[in-house]
Amino acid sequence: MKILVDITLKNGVLDPQGKAIQHALGALGFEGIDGVRQGKVIELDLAETDRSTAEVTAKKMCEKLLANTVIENYTIRPAS
Amino acid sequence: MKILVDITLKNGVLDPQGKAIQHALGALGFEGIDGVRQGKVIELDLAETDRSTAEVTAKKMCEKLLANTVIENYTIRPAS
Repeated sequence: MKILVDITLKNGVLDPQGKAIQHALGALGFEGIDGVRQGKVIELDLAETDRSTAEVTAKKMCEKLLANTVIENYTIRPAS
Repeated sequence: MKILVDITLKNGVLDPQGKAIQHALGALGFEGIDGVRQGKVIELDLAETDRSTAEVTAKKMCEKLLANTVIENYTIRPAS
């Protein structure tokens, strides 16, 4: 089954890429943008078919490799 | 309100970063991984409070700047 992992920077961690996007959107004429943050989404296609087991595996993957938990948060969700 | 935009590579577009993650997970002992794809998630904090208006604005941002629609798909969802 497919599992999606969203990895985003924690609050307080500087995000120059997000700032660059915010600036570029402003330059294109978009208004009312209070902030932009950029993160990663990783789609895992696992052979496991049980949802909760797959999510536990995805969590282990995040802790071991996918996310840097010092500066990043991650959330796991099933692919819709 | 906060809007999340997921930007992922279209099917058929090579994703070396995803392949590298898949390989690294295998090297760490994880099994049963049929595929990994990496994309971006962009969190937009908009002054607009109406959800549908904000989503229309986000769609325009995707078409103009955020996504390369030749090789990328995007999906827009409210931040939960």
